[in-house]
Amino acid sequence: MKKNAFYAQSGGVTSVINATAAALILESKKYQSKIGKVYAGKNGILGALKEELFDTSKETLATIKSLKTTPGGAFGSCRIKLKSFEENKKEYIRLVEVFKAHDIGYFFYNGGNDSADTAFKVSQISQNLGYPISCIAIPKTVDNDLVVTDCCPGFGSAAKYIATSTLEASLDVASMSETSTKVFILEVMGRHAGWMAASSALARVSKDDAPHVILLPEVTFNQKKFLSKVNNIVKSKGYCVIVTSEGVKNSKGKFLTESNTKDAFGHVQLGGVAPYLANLISKKLKLKNHWAVSDYLQRSARHIASKTDLLHAEAVGINAVRYAVKGMNGVMPVIVRGKGKKYTWKIKPAPLSKIANLEKKLPKSFISKDGFDVNSKAIEYLSPLIKGEAYPRFKNGIPRIKKLKLIQVKKKLPNWKA
Amino acid sequence: MKKNAFYAQSGGVTSVINATAAALILESKKYQSKIGKVYAGKNGILGALKEELFDTSKETLATIKSLKTTPGGAFGSCRIKLKSFEENKKEYIRLVEVFKAHDIGYFFYNGGNDSADTAFKVSQISQNLGYPISCIAIPKTVDNDLVVTDCCPGFGSAAKYIATSTLEASLDVASMSETSTKVFILEVMGRHAGWMAASSALARVSKDDAPHVILLPEVTFNQKKFLSKVNNIVKSKGYCVIVTSEGVKNSKGKFLTESNTKDAFGHVQLGGVAPYLANLISKKLKLKNHWAVSDYLQRSARHIASKTDLLHAEAVGINAVRYAVKGMNGVMPVIVRGKGKKYTWKIKPAPLSKIANLEKKLPKSFISKDGFDVNSKAIEYLSPLIKGEAYPRFKNGIPRIKKLKLIQVKKKLPNWKA
Repeated sequence: MKKNAFYAQSGGVTSVINATAAALILESKKYQSKIGKVYAGKNGILGALKEELFDTSKETLATIKSLKTTPGGAFGSCRIKLKSFEENKKEYIRLVEVFKAHDIGYFFYNGGNDSADTAFKVSQISQNLGYPISCIAIPKTVDNDLVVTDCCPGFGSAAKYIATSTLEASLDVASMSETSTKVFILEVMGRHAGWMAASSALARVSKDDAPHVILLPEVTFNQKKFLSKVNNIVKSKGYCVIVTSEGVKNSKGKFLTESNTKDAFGHVQLGGVAPYLANLISKKLKLKNHWAVSDYLQRSARHIASKTDLLHAEAVGINAVRYAVKGMNGVMPVIVRGKGKKYTWKIKPAPLSKIANLEKKLPKSFISKDGFDVNSKAIEYLSPLIKGEAYPRFKNGIPRIKKLKLIQVKKKLPNWKA
Repeated sequence: MKKNAFYAQSGGVTSVINATAAALILESKKYQSKIGKVYAGKNGILGALKEELFDTSKETLATIKSLKTTPGGAFGSCRIKLKSFEENKKEYIRLVEVFKAHDIGYFFYNGGNDSADTAFKVSQISQNLGYPISCIAIPKTVDNDLVVTDCCPGFGSAAKYIATSTLEASLDVASMSETSTKVFILEVMGRHAGWMAASSALARVSKDDAPHVILLPEVTFNQKKFLSKVNNIVKSKGYCVIVTSEGVKNSKGKFLTESNTKDAFGHVQLGGVAPYLANLISKKLKLKNHWAVSDYLQRSARHIASKTDLLHAEAVGINAVRYAVKGMNGVMPVIVRGKGKKYTWKIKPAPLSKIANLEKKLPKSFISKDGFDVNSKAIEYLSPLIKGEAYPRFKNGIPRIKKLKLIQVKKKLPNWKA
């Protein structure tokens, strides 16, 4: 019984999510008796609802392979969470109509927490609407906050970018500190979980190396202790490198960036934690500082991807296909770390019911006593994830990106109205 | 007549300034009858004034060679400009004392505009104080704003970082734009000259590609035209990528970041142009946006250095030595571009009197008619400078940095009092 497959990308993208897509499309070709075409949804689940399906078989093999080195989400992503079956039955009925119209029997959804939830809901279509579908959620998130899996594809590359950038910038500020900049602040992503900020600790070779202060969303910001620490570090080392999560909160549980800074018009000032801290350091410590906000750069920096992360990203794509053709439903291929000292890993299926909507924060046991750093347990966990380089091909000095043709399958149904 | 050499790094550092240092130290070894030891000044000219000299002959050959891939300024840099001989004779007399004490006959100063000025002043010591010195300024600046030289070592690598980052982030925002972020803003360095912002245009392969708006310090910011342009681009393409120089100014000649935004305490708000523009776009266009400020990351990103830039950086170091042993004084090795279609270049000496304190902005002929872009002439100039990759070695997932021993020469003089 041959069926077509639907694949879509959801949530914030990563530098290796397209590597998962490539691996999945290529692996599907090995099961021609079971999988027909792989249709990629335009902008995640929206593509299924709107019946906007890209026919990946129209792309050349070379283009599909080149996705391995293309950051962003090649088919478009979305920030949409399906309501429950009870709350919005209409959406599920529509999905089944589209699946039926295009003979889709496999549903692959590549995303984070919210996406696992969407995939979990779709996986229940079988029983709710009597439509047989094999639904597999595929992990992806720079936030590294999915439960069950040891780590999330996308995170290792962001972590490598952050560690490398912290190291490089720290050498810069060290050389400027005698007569100029004393403090450098790097803001990284992580609204609720501090995995990315924590990974900056991998920049250290010896204990004294930067970063000297790491601010995590898991630790309440204490302004007095923070300023005192920064001041002491500048006094002893001559300079201080701070890496902060965007999601650092004060004792009232508010993001620092939501605090009482207003502009001339009385509006709450937009802006990151890095300029907030820079302002604080300028005013209270009178120390010259520089700050950077890496934002999208950190999650799209395919040029400095981690080889280990890339292998994870490909493996989850490959295994998703294998699970699907075995008829599994409502599972996610997760990464399982081996127990030995040498880093080993394998992929196994885990039920979405145990993953959807849960969030894995940095455990307390990974955080230093004073709350301004991570400890050796964290380093032990993080270290293997950034290992290995996997450079893209460059042309004319920039990464070579092959553009997809993105040919849509002819629509068979009336337009979707949300 | 064998003399020792003094080498120092000055101003904002780059990802390849240490490659210049390495090339200079290694080249010096070829002239053992003329050059004795190479002393590196701790923190630029301060090292000469304070008699803080690192003996580079105490470093292993492997460590010196590894400087080729080490960002930052390995010997420390400074932001100090010597006053004129008439204004502060004391400093020059001290320099001569230090040179005499350590038998220094060659002075190499590696920096930008201000540093060329310092080097120019030192070069006049010969006549003013009767001390024979061969003084060579070596170009270095990510700002690319030195005159006479076709380009400045350090710039090409920053440009490659910016073009690559713009390309990567644009793929990210493109994939998010349907249901989330519509505008992405990247702030790059360039207080007075727009070379770095201009280099983001190298991210384009076809005309429609990002960046869609480039804001240059050479063009007065027109808020109305800017917002209208951004809005139109989002309407037609679905998203818009903006790259802005930190030094963009309004019609009153003030930096946008100095404008009337104040915090709750009435202080002028620190902070970059990117959050300023983001705020504007949120309020006036109600478009969801993300912004990044690359700050030190862009000038220390040795992991994505340009091979062409690296070769320039090494060549100016090598030629500085050759000029010095020929007895030249008050010159800079500059990069001269060949006339043919294929990019060629050579190094020649140019007098510091024609370089010091002058600033090369982006010429009007490189800027698009509407002022929001650069044109094909700019691309033609910029394109060769980012070509080629020159990856550092990695260890445990991060660039491998060999630490210098930094052994100081024994002081012979009383302490310096400024």
